[in-house]
Amino acid sequence: MEKELTQLMSYRPGIRVVDATLRDGGLVNDFFFKDDFVKALYETNIKAGVDYMEFGYKCSKEMFDVKKFGKWKFCADDDIRAIVGDQSKGPKIAVMADVGRCDYQNDILKKSESPIDMIRVATYLHQMPAAVAMIEDAKDKGYEVSCNIMAISNVQESDIKVALDLLGNSPVDIIYIVDSYGALYPETMSRVCDVYREYAEKYGKKLGVHAHNNQQLAFANTIEAVGDGVDYLDATYASMGRGAGNCAMELLLGFLKNPKYKEFEAFKFVEYHMNKLKEEGTVWGYDLQYLMTGLLNQHPRTAIEFTKNKRKDYAEFYKELILLD
Amino acid sequence: MEKELTQLMSYRPGIRVVDATLRDGGLVNDFFFKDDFVKALYETNIKAGVDYMEFGYKCSKEMFDVKKFGKWKFCADDDIRAIVGDQSKGPKIAVMADVGRCDYQNDILKKSESPIDMIRVATYLHQMPAAVAMIEDAKDKGYEVSCNIMAISNVQESDIKVALDLLGNSPVDIIYIVDSYGALYPETMSRVCDVYREYAEKYGKKLGVHAHNNQQLAFANTIEAVGDGVDYLDATYASMGRGAGNCAMELLLGFLKNPKYKEFEAFKFVEYHMNKLKEEGTVWGYDLQYLMTGLLNQHPRTAIEFTKNKRKDYAEFYKELILLD
Repeated sequence: MEKELTQLMSYRPGIRVVDATLRDGGLVNDFFFKDDFVKALYETNIKAGVDYMEFGYKCSKEMFDVKKFGKWKFCADDDIRAIVGDQSKGPKIAVMADVGRCDYQNDILKKSESPIDMIRVATYLHQMPAAVAMIEDAKDKGYEVSCNIMAISNVQESDIKVALDLLGNSPVDIIYIVDSYGALYPETMSRVCDVYREYAEKYGKKLGVHAHNNQQLAFANTIEAVGDGVDYLDATYASMGRGAGNCAMELLLGFLKNPKYKEFEAFKFVEYHMNKLKEEGTVWGYDLQYLMTGLLNQHPRTAIEFTKNKRKDYAEFYKELILLD
Repeated sequence: MEKELTQLMSYRPGIRVVDATLRDGGLVNDFFFKDDFVKALYETNIKAGVDYMEFGYKCSKEMFDVKKFGKWKFCADDDIRAIVGDQSKGPKIAVMADVGRCDYQNDILKKSESPIDMIRVATYLHQMPAAVAMIEDAKDKGYEVSCNIMAISNVQESDIKVALDLLGNSPVDIIYIVDSYGALYPETMSRVCDVYREYAEKYGKKLGVHAHNNQQLAFANTIEAVGDGVDYLDATYASMGRGAGNCAMELLLGFLKNPKYKEFEAFKFVEYHMNKLKEEGTVWGYDLQYLMTGLLNQHPRTAIEFTKNKRKDYAEFYKELILLD
């Protein structure tokens, strides 16, 4: 596709920025964010012009011990209300609901009774029928609904096309391209976008992108996707997210030319809050072990374990990965 | 240009990887590398299949105090020989010569008397005639010669074309695209490559790329350039280089598919040597202050000063930059 944003001076009004700091960042600290942090994040998103703020997961309290996780793993509506107040001028509010980890029939109320605006259904390719059931449930309840098909870098393109047909025929609003392993290069991303765009155009859906920074390409892949017609862009402050983290909000807002986006607010939030998290010992972001799993197109769990164990023997780790491969 | 490397499984044999760790990294530590480090780097480059190793600058000892800098700011032929020995199987050896900072007539000997293979002439756009004189001198002496036009992101495209015509008519072998400020996006890089390629094809020159990581795009811009027909690729281990640093060698070797490149050797070198440099207190690499100068297309000197002064008031720094702008 000839890049639509070739005139980098201009912008596409349909673009939406989604702050996923609490949700993907919560995977780093088990969702133990302080309320002051969450309030400051919400205020920053208002000032920065961010369009959506994802608060966390709607996980089942039957499946996960509430003592072992902070509240944003469960995203009770009242906890969200305590942060956002009357919601009159803030970003839209999103939560993620994982297939198989969510009691969505009971835990997701009707939109008219909830502060939440968007349900983001996350699924693996083999769970598509369950994902479609969740999409239908959320849509029936009145929500905007997106679907993230995770870990697409090690599945067959023909299977992705079947899933895109299923989603096309579902009431989902936005279909997300998700590079869970940080394995895609911009050139690969461009080709993936071509495939997704064909189905999005056929069925009248919007597209989104969620990138990981294993090869320092989360920002590059996100702006590649922007040029390829993708409108919903996930980002996190200081790239906070599982493993190597995500596309940095401060980079993305600097790139986007819509004057409503204020990168200065992102700079301030990183200085005042994100750098503090790092100083307090929370560890995330690009490092060799994540490069390695990204390069090998593997799930980052081994690299996360390497990080948790404070190992520094990167070369030995690579040998372990090659044997695993 | 339709990407030549679209088949990411294949590779272009003409690609050459240039290790610039000592040269651009030397700007971080005033070239005070230990001999053991330099020897290990040379050995790593042999094993990793790196094609060129840039040892540093050929700076004039009249202009720079030899007590204030390590030896790789001057790159005496005997110092190089002490590292490379008989040079029978190693990478080709390059040094950089800056216009106006180099006594090239005297300090650069004939190639037949020197271990050096390539002279890399670095110039600003307004110094082109002096650069051409240096290129002619180096070519007369028998060297392979490249020319880096620096800081192209804030000059007129029409002026660049005049410079490319001058270089086209000179005996230079390789013309480098240099994103000194880390200000280019991959899409911009693609368009810059189109301009350079037109002249390269007209005059039978090769192209090279040297990127900076201010916006975490050094690797992305380098592989964008690969797809746009650029053959000479600068990289440094752990991205070591001025300010935000360069394209990481470990990322680049992982991407390139020519089986002669061995990324495992890069992983080992980063673990054993580069991480040690960082632990000892040498500071470089992506951080907010470099994002800011890159975004504003400014020289990184203010951000380097910010780093040296161990400042952490990023938001205040941004205000200073905006006033400077």
